[in-house]
Formats: sequence, C-alpha cells, structure tokens
Amino acid sequence: MKKLKRSARLVEMTQYLLIRPHTLIPLTTFADRYNSAKSSISEDLAIIKEVFEEEGLGELQTLAGAAGGVKFIPKVSKSHSLQFITQLCRQLEQPERILPGGYLYMSDIMGQPMILNEVGKMFASAFSGNDIDVVMTVETKGIPLAYATATYLNLPVVIVRRDNKVTEGSAVSINYVSGSNKRIQTMSLSRRALKEEAKVLIIDDFMRVGGTIHGMMDLLQEFKATVKGVGVFVESGEVEEHLVEDYVSLAKLSAVDPKTRQITAEPGNYFQEEVSNLNEE
Amino acid sequence: MKKLKRSARLVEMTQYLLIRPHTLIPLTTFADRYNSAKSSISEDLAIIKEVFEEEGLGELQTLAGAAGGVKFIPKVSKSHSLQFITQLCRQLEQPERILPGGYLYMSDIMGQPMILNEVGKMFASAFSGNDIDVVMTVETKGIPLAYATATYLNLPVVIVRRDNKVTEGSAVSINYVSGSNKRIQTMSLSRRALKEEAKVLIIDDFMRVGGTIHGMMDLLQEFKATVKGVGVFVESGEVEEHLVEDYVSLAKLSAVDPKTRQITAEPGNYFQEEVSNLNEE
Repeated sequence: MKKLKRSARLVEMTQYLLIRPHTLIPLTTFADRYNSAKSSISEDLAIIKEVFEEEGLGELQTLAGAAGGVKFIPKVSKSHSLQFITQLCRQLEQPERILPGGYLYMSDIMGQPMILNEVGKMFASAFSGNDIDVVMTVETKGIPLAYATATYLNLPVVIVRRDNKVTEGSAVSINYVSGSNKRIQTMSLSRRALKEEAKVLIIDDFMRVGGTIHGMMDLLQEFKATVKGVGVFVESGEVEEHLVEDYVSLAKLSAVDPKTRQITAEPGNYFQEEVSNLNEE
Repeated sequence: MKKLKRSARLVEMTQYLLIRPHTLIPLTTFADRYNSAKSSISEDLAIIKEVFEEEGLGELQTLAGAAGGVKFIPKVSKSHSLQFITQLCRQLEQPERILPGGYLYMSDIMGQPMILNEVGKMFASAFSGNDIDVVMTVETKGIPLAYATATYLNLPVVIVRRDNKVTEGSAVSINYVSGSNKRIQTMSLSRRALKEEAKVLIIDDFMRVGGTIHGMMDLLQEFKATVKGVGVFVESGEVEEHLVEDYVSLAKLSAVDPKTRQITAEPGNYFQEEVSNLNEE
C-alpha cells in the first residue's frame, strides 16, 4: 500500500478499528499497511484514543511488548445510556401501544436498527469483561438484539428454535413452562451450534417471570455450558418473583392497565445506581 | 463543543459518518459541532471521501446549496464482494454440512455477525438506488440478514411471522404453498407494521422454488405495497423454474448429493457479469 499522510491514515485507522471490535491488532499491521514508522502509528492511536474516549465510543486498549497491539472495546457510558433509555421509556408509554390482553406493541421500536445497535452497545458494555464465547437467544424477537450485541463483542450468535428444524441437523430439545401462560412449550438447539463447555451470554427482548430464559439455562446444561450473563431489553415489573435471579434489564414496564390505558416504563436494573443518585440530588 | 484540531476532527467525522449511512448531514452541523469554518470542514470531507473510496467503504456524496450537506452511501465493489463470496462458497462445500434430506447446515455461517454485516453491505450496495421505505423478511433465518442490510440502508425492518402472535396486534394472514414440500403454510404481518403503499425490499436467507418469497409478495398486496427488490443470500440451483422472476442472489448451491457427499456452490446472479468476464480472461 502506498504511503499515506497522517490525515488519511487517521481516517483509515478509525474505520479499521471501528469494524473490528475486541480484536487485537498488532502495531506492525498498521505500520505495514501504511508504510509508516511504528512511532507515527503510536501517535495516531493516541489521537484516536482521545477522540473515542471523549465521544464515549469506547476504549482503545494498548498492549505493549512483542505480542502487543491495540484493541477497540466499544463502550457507552451509563449516563449516556440512561438518557437514551429514558427517551425510549416515553415511547413505550404511548397508550396506542396497548394490545388486547395487556400486551404492549413494541415491534416498531424493535424494527429500527439504530435503536437496536444502541441497545446492543449497552449490553456489550455491560458484559464486556465477562469472558464470553457466544451470544444466545431464542427466536424471534430477541434475534436482532443478540446480533447487535454480538457485533460489538465480536462473538458468534446461536439461536434456539421453538421447533425442531430439519435444516439444523440433530438437536437437543427440552420442554419448559412458559411463565406467562403456564403452557408447556418446547425449545431446541442444534447439536452443532454449541461446543461443549461454552461460556454463554443470554440475550432476550422481554422477560416476565423468566420461564423462557430459565428454559434456555436448562438447555445449556445439556451442553455443559456456563451462563456468563443474562441481558433483557425490557422486563415486566408486574412480577414479584422471577425464575431467574441474576440478570441485567435496560427498561422495566411497571404496569400496563388496559382499562385506564396507562403505561409506566422506567429504566431497568442496569441503571439502579444512576437513578438513585439522580433522586438524591 | 471545544475547537478540535484537524486530526481529531477527522477521527470524529469519520465515525460520525460511518454510523449514519444514507443520512444527509448539513455542513453547518459539523461546523457548529467543531467550532470550525465550513471551508475547513469541506477540506476534511475531501480527505475522508478519498480514503472511503480507495478503501471501498462507499461514496461520500456532497450536495451543494442551502439544503446541501454530505451523505455517506455504504457501497462495496462487486470485485471485492465476489472474492468474499467465493471464499464463502468453499465453506459451503464442506461435506460435513450435508444433513439428512439433502439439506445443508448453514447456521454457523449465519451466526457470524462479521459475515452477515458483509452480506448486508452487498445487499445495500445492490439496492441502494431503489427508493425503498422498509426491509422485510420472514422469520427466522432471514432476520439477521435483513437487519444487517437495513443498517447500511438506514431503513426500518418488518418481520413476517409464521404464526399470529398476540404481541403483534391485529394482523393480515395469508396461506401459501411452500415450494419445497408443497405444504400449505400460513404467514402473517401485523397491520401496524407497514404503512399502506410502502416500497419494500424483501430479504431472505435461502430460496428454492421461491414459494415463501412469493407468499410475502402476495401478503404485500394486502397492504398495497410495492416490491422494490428481492435479495436472497443463497439460491438453490436444483430448480428449473422459480415462482419469483426478478431477484438478486449472492450464492448458488448447484447440487447437494447426499450419496457422494459432493456439494457445488458458486457465486449467484449478482456476479453474473464479473464471473463471465473472469471466464473470458
């Protein structure tokens, strides 16, 4: 590659790092790529690091030594995330979202890639230190969230199916009791999809009692896998006791009253500290 | 915002543009943001434009005048895409992918966000001039592809369901004949999901006869919508006649022989010209 000026190099390196999160890039890769001295590359990285941190894009970790290099860890601050989620809560409270049975229409929000990418970045920030091999979800609505999260963590995704598909090969199936309607349901995961003893992050769009997520945990036992984290976008606040103890929620639907058409949505347990700090001020 | 040096500004503007594809950004936005003269911003953009084009990231369209500004159109060249798809075809040809019934296991490939993002960029390049309002797919495997495509086109996604979910509100359902096994199946789309007369890009992971995609087209008629494009990741080459005439495919599975365990995968019709040019050379 021809020698680039610093200005062009900065543009190039910025995009290169942004599309390769959680990937160690040796300084020599950049030095060779731009036909530049390592010292110049280090100076470039210092500039990029400062902007990324000021803009709240994430961290640029530099590792010294022969095996060293630079790694971009996407991270969004909790205060920025809280602002975003608070706005989203106002959207969730629109009375026209109420469906028969007290369900809430959320598909328009879940259909916006920009929102999902932002939410994925939050989950990636929440679980970035958790030593995870794979992100898992169950069809259907959790899928885009799982991919958005996995993109920022640079991890693969496995999808648990509600049925047993011929295109998945042999699969492990379990029955579980859905928390909402107490019906027995089936979920299955292809044998090939998950290596044994994998470290798994579970992501889903909604949690009421937690039956589905608990089902995924049971399924993971069949693969001798370890659950390293559970992230749900919206949890229902109407439930006293959950089947899942340890989870991160970004928003909480405290009540959906089909009669008064009143909905209350508030930030989830991820923001507990921030919210109580705000209340004290 | 404090005045930034050109070097920091370039990093900042690069990331700003990359996460806002197909969005017109007035020069004043940047000028205000960095407390800089418009002339400096224009010079910055010229540098970014050159790198983006050389790197094959896409175009930076500048619109002059009062309503002017800059727009990033992600685009990947066909020659670069062909390289990527050719590698992917070699992966698809691995004999251990063959499942009973001649199906091919692809979930590991579809579980890699990096691959999906690359494929999404190809669809976004193929359809970027098509004046589209929304990207549509049917659950399950097409979902991540649809979102990856929609991200680069800056469009929302609607998901057609195989069943009629209570969380979707009132829906329009149709019956269709699945091409592969001739069984009658149902698909449905929430009434709220799509405005009337929407212009739709259909994305799916796999097409054999095209029954499912044809079903989606029928469903769209109920919404008075127009199909502006159809993109399939992998098409089956075993079929002589398709129910869908006009589509873009990125790869073609020409034969899956469960006896000889031989699979042939080749680039799809999107690369027709490139492939015939290569063969002539």
